[in-house]
Amino acid sequence: MRVALSLSELIAIVGPAEVRGAIDGDVTGLASLETARTGDLSFLGNPRYKSQVPESQASVILLPTDHAGTPRAGQAFVLVANPSVALAAVCARLEQRLWPRPSPGIHPSASVATDAVVAPTATIGPLCVVESGARIGERTHLQAQVFVGRGTRIGDDCWLQPGVQVTAECTLHDRVRLQPGVVVGSDGFGYEFVRGRHEKVPQVGGVTVESDVEIGANATIDRARFSQTVIGEGTKIDNLVQVAHNVVMGKHCILCAQVGIAGSTTLGDYVVLGGQAGVGGHLTIGRGVKAGGRAGLTTDVEAGAFVSGMPALPHMLEQRLTILRKRLPELFRRFDALEVAVAELKKSSSA
Amino acid sequence: MRVALSLSELIAIVGPAEVRGAIDGDVTGLASLETARTGDLSFLGNPRYKSQVPESQASVILLPTDHAGTPRAGQAFVLVANPSVALAAVCARLEQRLWPRPSPGIHPSASVATDAVVAPTATIGPLCVVESGARIGERTHLQAQVFVGRGTRIGDDCWLQPGVQVTAECTLHDRVRLQPGVVVGSDGFGYEFVRGRHEKVPQVGGVTVESDVEIGANATIDRARFSQTVIGEGTKIDNLVQVAHNVVMGKHCILCAQVGIAGSTTLGDYVVLGGQAGVGGHLTIGRGVKAGGRAGLTTDVEAGAFVSGMPALPHMLEQRLTILRKRLPELFRRFDALEVAVAELKKSSSA
Amino acid sequence: MRVALSLSELIAIVGPAEVRGAIDGDVTGLASLETARTGDLSFLGNPRYKSQVPESQASVILLPTDHAGTPRAGQAFVLVANPSVALAAVCARLEQRLWPRPSPGIHPSASVATDAVVAPTATIGPLCVVESGARIGERTHLQAQVFVGRGTRIGDDCWLQPGVQVTAECTLHDRVRLQPGVVVGSDGFGYEFVRGRHEKVPQVGGVTVESDVEIGANATIDRARFSQTVIGEGTKIDNLVQVAHNVVMGKHCILCAQVGIAGSTTLGDYVVLGGQAGVGGHLTIGRGVKAGGRAGLTTDVEAGAFVSGMPALPHMLEQRLTILRKRLPELFRRFDALEVAVAELKKSSSA
Repeated sequence: MRVALSLSELIAIVGPAEVRGAIDGDVTGLASLETARTGDLSFLGNPRYKSQVPESQASVILLPTDHAGTPRAGQAFVLVANPSVALAAVCARLEQRLWPRPSPGIHPSASVATDAVVAPTATIGPLCVVESGARIGERTHLQAQVFVGRGTRIGDDCWLQPGVQVTAECTLHDRVRLQPGVVVGSDGFGYEFVRGRHEKVPQVGGVTVESDVEIGANATIDRARFSQTVIGEGTKIDNLVQVAHNVVMGKHCILCAQVGIAGSTTLGDYVVLGGQAGVGGHLTIGRGVKAGGRAGLTTDVEAGAFVSGMPALPHMLEQRLTILRKRLPELFRRFDALEVAVAELKKSSSA
Repeated sequence: MRVALSLSELIAIVGPAEVRGAIDGDVTGLASLETARTGDLSFLGNPRYKSQVPESQASVILLPTDHAGTPRAGQAFVLVANPSVALAAVCARLEQRLWPRPSPGIHPSASVATDAVVAPTATIGPLCVVESGARIGERTHLQAQVFVGRGTRIGDDCWLQPGVQVTAECTLHDRVRLQPGVVVGSDGFGYEFVRGRHEKVPQVGGVTVESDVEIGANATIDRARFSQTVIGEGTKIDNLVQVAHNVVMGKHCILCAQVGIAGSTTLGDYVVLGGQAGVGGHLTIGRGVKAGGRAGLTTDVEAGAFVSGMPALPHMLEQRLTILRKRLPELFRRFDALEVAVAELKKSSSA
Repeated sequence: MRVALSLSELIAIVGPAEVRGAIDGDVTGLASLETARTGDLSFLGNPRYKSQVPESQASVILLPTDHAGTPRAGQAFVLVANPSVALAAVCARLEQRLWPRPSPGIHPSASVATDAVVAPTATIGPLCVVESGARIGERTHLQAQVFVGRGTRIGDDCWLQPGVQVTAECTLHDRVRLQPGVVVGSDGFGYEFVRGRHEKVPQVGGVTVESDVEIGANATIDRARFSQTVIGEGTKIDNLVQVAHNVVMGKHCILCAQVGIAGSTTLGDYVVLGGQAGVGGHLTIGRGVKAGGRAGLTTDVEAGAFVSGMPALPHMLEQRLTILRKRLPELFRRFDALEVAVAELKKSSSA
């Protein structure tokens, strides 16, 4: 946070509040009760941390209305119905300052094809390229140095951050947010082995990104061989994730950073994949499946399952195997001792 | 697929054909027999799926000449010598429409150094940068927002898609295809630890990308410390792959998504690395080696071997160990029972 | 290396030297003694490799002053106090030629906000975007197609290579080097699950990159939820690394390629993480911790520890477990035999 807020601005944002104490200067930062320093705003989101309030160095603390304490000199307590909701309101306001709504229009340095259709409320920022036949919806924002290929349709209220590339004949629905460096519509990885060489299989399908999807920085989504690679509504994808051609992903999935999904795999709704997890090709991962970080899914997984490990197993089994693996030195030792004992028994019984 | 084809256009593309039935409107999609809907083109590539033909909702189906059935109303069967070849011809045509050959010339918004040499048939798209001394070959296409550094030489018929960066003093041979966001020639990761700090080791070598190589979106290829990092002819690299400095890769290798190869490692021809696999530094991986997904190669691997696991082992052994690991709970149970039995035998024998 | 050096230029760079022999033409490459060919410069950095000198095809070899041999025809020996130091001097010179210091000033094709503050000695290359309120320090170089968001402050002597994106309200100190495609300040991956949907948690903090940090191609550093994600002074990060929001990294760390660090984790100074390693969220990794390639750190790790495996264990234990795992087939075989033996003993004792 770099944006300064005066105490009165802050109170205007959070709504009805009782204020105790006063501060010198502005609020210039946000921090937890423990880590806050002078100038910071903090909050008591959970009564469990109540004991941290008196020691906190925060200049302003958002507190519940029943909070009894008094602030130190130069500190203000702001008592509100719900401190977490109040903090969210402050964050939303800061977000608007960080990312102010741009003025509509096409920057003179952008290169927009004459037959592209750009909504009058859309913003095409500096040094963007919009190719022939592309459509850019209402209030959609191509921030800077964005590429939109021929025939691609982008819905309303989307935000394509700097350096995003969406290639030809892709579709983004509404409120899609692509972070810097995202690639949508790169070619699927398909080759046929012919006379000692890999011959390219044309990838003439597209990518459909449904509404309310967010995709993290430098993630890559391949176009389908034919038909569509699909990212379901409300799904959130973290940085450096790879989604291969013909993947069909359900709604409201969560893919943490560096996940990879191989071609033609289907994910149900509400699937959650931990960081660096991988999913093999041509698999069906059921609704609500959860996979731990670094899990490697090599077979179909039934709806609702929680899996981990490589190859992925039910999480409870994987945990048990992890523990037993650590006991291997003990097992080998005990086994050696037991072999000796049995040999002695044999000797004595045959004696 | 967004491009519409009339039935007669389609027939013109696939060559000699017998047509049964007729369709309303155009072909607007491509899909498998099972998933096709009205408007789609489908095909019977393998006689095994013959039973899916009567139920398919495809508007047009490419079939072998000996196919006996008749289309439903509003559906057309197109009988050809080889439906797979016919489909490939359609895809190739669609690819041309998706990615039409651009007109030669330098876009006025591009920044091209006066002493760069651009072939008259090359296309330098909008907002590209070509630095001093670079050479761009015949019919090579820098699509948009591409960067080519000083002294870099790019051969004929290459295609650098939006946002590609090739830094100074690199070499691309002919027909190289770089997908969006690829970086060729980033510095190798080399430091010397001097008085508590990591001092940079200059990376003054280059990268040589041989002919017919394709590199996937946001993949990174580091320049050599000195000499060259080499990507051999015909090798195909998927998205988000990392190739470190001084790697020398053979011809016709396949590197699936998110693979990482550490510095100074050599790969023979026809090596195949599954997704998320990793290869340590200073190793020699023999011709034709195959590594499973997520394999971690930590030692040299002999030509022709198939390895998997981390650290990678021969695939058959790794599979066996994976199965035995799952039997650890059983082994511990049986072992405990056996220990009890032996203790009882001991007691009774000493009694 | 593409830059030619004459023998006399070379001698001028390395300082006081005794020269034996002479070469035809220029030095046009750099290579090890073993791999050098005509035209290459090589060096004897370690007396161990002395026996390679007579067979080396290098045109020029840097040797210690006490070296006794004589060059072949068309070859020159250059005897210096320290061949490694001499080589470093040559590499530094080559680096200057590869990456010559640019002229200060703002390229006419760049889009720089009128209220951005660009130091007079800074260089803003072609097609860069510098948003409102940003500050660019002395001698800092934005090479080409770089994006710097509103309010971001970049110190002195930084180098942002082509296609780098630094979003709003981030801070880079001095001598920071960002390779092509790096993203600094992408949103942290934070959502709250509300009525069946993932609602975005605003990420209104920033990123602070301290002095002498280098970040590799296409790596991504997320901005904090509030407060700052911190990359400590002198830390070096390789390609395709992911650093999540609120990570606080110490000084002089080394993160090899494709490492991922989850949110709110703290790394002490001098931490080294091998390629493809992963670190879970909300962990504390102590000063000087080393983690092997592909290690998965799922718990706090004490200062100075060396860990490997997934989940990560002390390296010696992990190595032992890896060996014992390979002995599982033997253990199962021996166990089966022992069970039979005990059954026989039981039978005979009960007989």
